[in-house]
Amino acid sequence: MKISFRPIGIVHSPFKGRGDIPRSRCIDPQGFDDIQGELEIFKEFEEGLQDIDGFSHIILLFAFHKSDEGSLIAHPPHDNQRRGVFSTRSPHRPNPLGFTVLKLVQREGNVLKVSGVDMVEGTPILDIKPYTRRDLKKEAKFGWLEDLD
Amino acid sequence: MKISFRPIGIVHSPFKGRGDIPRSRCIDPQGFDDIQGELEIFKEFEEGLQDIDGFSHIILLFAFHKSDEGSLIAHPPHDNQRRGVFSTRSPHRPNPLGFTVLKLVQREGNVLKVSGVDMVEGTPILDIKPYTRRDLKKEAKFGWLEDLD
Repeated sequence: MKISFRPIGIVHSPFKGRGDIPRSRCIDPQGFDDIQGELEIFKEFEEGLQDIDGFSHIILLFAFHKSDEGSLIAHPPHDNQRRGVFSTRSPHRPNPLGFTVLKLVQREGNVLKVSGVDMVEGTPILDIKPYTRRDLKKEAKFGWLEDLD
Repeated sequence: MKISFRPIGIVHSPFKGRGDIPRSRCIDPQGFDDIQGELEIFKEFEEGLQDIDGFSHIILLFAFHKSDEGSLIAHPPHDNQRRGVFSTRSPHRPNPLGFTVLKLVQREGNVLKVSGVDMVEGTPILDIKPYTRRDLKKEAKFGWLEDLD
């Protein structure tokens, strides 16, 4: 069984290739906050952006189009351990689906100016959703990541 | 251009059909917190669950396999307005991709017992990721949803 999606836009990022993304920033909650970029939504989908302006943060779902074949074990950059891939944010996963919460700086027609960009130039955008109160889990605990603090 | 994914598991939910999901709960940040279910990860992917146990919350990416054809305009249940679909969490979107943060109650082998379930029985699971500090946006503002408070 295959489930297929089509890009609704592409990311414009200062990171031109995978190697340009500073892995050391991944452990820092604010690590990418100052990285600006643009989400170019294809014109045929622009109408769907109506009302997005009032949200300070948006959820970007995208394809890790440059990732290696998926593995079940990951080697996070900030850790000496091998970890199950589903307990990491590694791009090399069985389904190369990416998820990042971005700050919405400004909308200009079919282009969203954002910050918090941690993906490469040309990344295919699959969906955009508003970040809502249901996504804010103030009481959360962060497993093996807490040991690195 | 098509991007294809395959299910890595399925959701077991008390909601047997679309109509069973109480739409009135969608606006409440704790609306689904008490809804329990299970994520059955197919055995071939079980190794990837290693180290997930320590996380209190996980991100579930799934396919809205029962949704209607995607529309660019949505009619949220708790609102009298038509909204751009990308400023809503409607299941009827150009790419029927779902995103929910779940509380991880317990892992038993290839099964994750969770709460916060807002999807139907049999939903195809595409990915699981840990919920991390980078996903916690305490300063967020929630656009048109704030008008409903």
